[in-house]
Amino acid sequence: MERDRLETYADLIVKNGLNLDKGQELLVIADLDQADFVRMVVEKCYQAGASRVVVEWHDMPMDRLHCIYQTPETLSQVPAWEIARWKWRAERLPALLWLDSDDPDGMAGVDPAKRAQAQAARFPAIKPFREATENRHQWCIAAVPGVKWAKKVFPDKSEPEAVEALWEAILTAARANGDAVANWKEHNETIHRRSAKLNEYNFAALEYHSANGTDFRVGLLEQGKFCGAAEKDLSGRIFNPNIPSEEVFTTPKKGEAEGLLVATKPLSWQGVLIEDFSIRFEKGRAVEVHARKGQAALEKMIGMDEGAAYLGECALIGADSPINRMGVLFYCTLFDENASCHMAVGRGFNECVRDYNKYSLEELRELGVNDSMIHVDFMIGSEDLSIDGITRDGEKIPVFRNGNWCF
Amino acid sequence: MERDRLETYADLIVKNGLNLDKGQELLVIADLDQADFVRMVVEKCYQAGASRVVVEWHDMPMDRLHCIYQTPETLSQVPAWEIARWKWRAERLPALLWLDSDDPDGMAGVDPAKRAQAQAARFPAIKPFREATENRHQWCIAAVPGVKWAKKVFPDKSEPEAVEALWEAILTAARANGDAVANWKEHNETIHRRSAKLNEYNFAALEYHSANGTDFRVGLLEQGKFCGAAEKDLSGRIFNPNIPSEEVFTTPKKGEAEGLLVATKPLSWQGVLIEDFSIRFEKGRAVEVHARKGQAALEKMIGMDEGAAYLGECALIGADSPINRMGVLFYCTLFDENASCHMAVGRGFNECVRDYNKYSLEELRELGVNDSMIHVDFMIGSEDLSIDGITRDGEKIPVFRNGNWCF
Repeated sequence: MERDRLETYADLIVKNGLNLDKGQELLVIADLDQADFVRMVVEKCYQAGASRVVVEWHDMPMDRLHCIYQTPETLSQVPAWEIARWKWRAERLPALLWLDSDDPDGMAGVDPAKRAQAQAARFPAIKPFREATENRHQWCIAAVPGVKWAKKVFPDKSEPEAVEALWEAILTAARANGDAVANWKEHNETIHRRSAKLNEYNFAALEYHSANGTDFRVGLLEQGKFCGAAEKDLSGRIFNPNIPSEEVFTTPKKGEAEGLLVATKPLSWQGVLIEDFSIRFEKGRAVEVHARKGQAALEKMIGMDEGAAYLGECALIGADSPINRMGVLFYCTLFDENASCHMAVGRGFNECVRDYNKYSLEELRELGVNDSMIHVDFMIGSEDLSIDGITRDGEKIPVFRNGNWCF
Repeated sequence: MERDRLETYADLIVKNGLNLDKGQELLVIADLDQADFVRMVVEKCYQAGASRVVVEWHDMPMDRLHCIYQTPETLSQVPAWEIARWKWRAERLPALLWLDSDDPDGMAGVDPAKRAQAQAARFPAIKPFREATENRHQWCIAAVPGVKWAKKVFPDKSEPEAVEALWEAILTAARANGDAVANWKEHNETIHRRSAKLNEYNFAALEYHSANGTDFRVGLLEQGKFCGAAEKDLSGRIFNPNIPSEEVFTTPKKGEAEGLLVATKPLSWQGVLIEDFSIRFEKGRAVEVHARKGQAALEKMIGMDEGAAYLGECALIGADSPINRMGVLFYCTLFDENASCHMAVGRGFNECVRDYNKYSLEELRELGVNDSMIHVDFMIGSEDLSIDGITRDGEKIPVFRNGNWCF
């Protein structure tokens, strides 16, 4: 990929994605695949005023070996240096950048139960630190192409051609062509206009219908709000947590979800691909799942903890979104979630409650913000999807028709 | 490089280099350049019984950015997670594998004084942990080709050809062709025979002469011994700390070095290349240095701390060593030191004192084992080098003639 296009993308990540304070610290978590690009981003962060950048190189093939060969006990431990790193994050609130390039099939051959159990065992040690950072710093997830990921998306191309094609798709999806900063100004305004309108209605519920079998209703918090694109942290810093980001989303009310959701795209979870699946909800809880492929992983996923079977996100994206119209299946949630309306099981978003910082964590849980160690999106958008908003007075307002926004 | 030749090399590193105990932990420090080979080695370590392998990915270009952009204060800090990692090393004594592929010029553009000061400031926090691990675990340094390193060694080749040529040179130098384990059995025996003979003589000093100007005498400890190739840690585990390793070496007596040493190969220190240099010693101390290139770095090096101007190693290698006869200049100490007789300024080797574990650290320092934060080898071997051993009775015994061993 041409260097000036990579520079544009790197600038977008540093300026719009992170928007660092002068003197702020930064944690970068990156795979090994595009080290030159990671270095370019790190240099730009220093030039933007970062006082210290800490790079954690992550390698899924190595994680795979650890999962296969370590005992469950060893795999479940949280080493002291990891706790020390979390303490730094909680105390100094460095911005967080995650540059993802994982192979969607990278964990094939690993026992999902062994991995999930270790993750569950590790979670209590990490949870307090994660909560201490929540909404207190800027964070951004963006992607770079890894060879295996690129071959998954473009299996008929040679490795270098596939990587180049995936770069092209990533840059297009990220609106990083031309004047990326101007693109994102306009884009942030459209998203904010739609979420403002939804927040005026303050719907009690949304109802979903599609010929694919989806027939579903989800309850919304009276104190809730829809968010999207640029966000503000508690100290007022504006940042774009996802590049790309097409969604308008909120946190649903725990306990109010009824009916069937039929997934319209595959889901990659912990390196396992789950395909052609549906989830049926009763009283907010996933009570039945069916998958043509990946049934065990899907069951494991919603069984990770008590909250893993409840919803934590409800997101709206028009079928005419650029990512959907590109017609590329990325096998990566960051992109595929922006092609399609979706839900997530697991942890909800405190920041989707108005004035959320006036509530304690316990109060937010009581309002109906779900809690879990996981947060996993799955896609339910289709070309014929209808969504109606149900007002607190019981009035029905069209929100989506034929897969697209009504406003 | 063919997979089976890489497997042979990986097996050599795991079996001869590390010789892990069942259930032992392992720390691997590796650059990003040959991730597939690093993964191969890690899998073999697990198969050999490692209970946990921790991989620290190191990236010199990123270190370069930190050095350039961080303030001296930030660069001097030792973060809590680094201390936690050192505590683990001191308490659990994991084996240590360092897979080096650094670009010899990778730190160009960095102010050596800034980097050296930060290193000096960080040292006191790390020193006690380093001492707590010394001679208590197996460690091994081996190399893999990085692209920039390969282009430095083979500048006229394309990048892939240069990497392939450097693989070939590394495998040959490492005696990793054919039956590597048998090669190393014979090789370890030759080295042990020579060091046994030197230890019988128990020389008081060695005298060096060459037409290149070298005219030098170094004192040896009465309690000292020559070592080489396979070593034993304090719990009796046999390992090969350097792959390749051609040297028979000891720790000289601090305070006894007189005359001029003329370097016969360039030295790469902290990413700076030092060329055509000489060092003059008086009463054991480097009092004068001259370098056609890298004078500032050379001065900085011997000024790092009090012990940096004193010798910490005296190593003997015949001019007919395979690495010297290959005629490849690696720009990497691990290889170039094995092509040539050399000395090191800086920290000496406690394990080159007989029954060293019966002495306290202070007693070893008093005997004349040098202490410093650095240990840097420089090459002094030449085709005409003569070395004589001076016995405790003043008798002169030929050790080297015309650059090669007399026994």
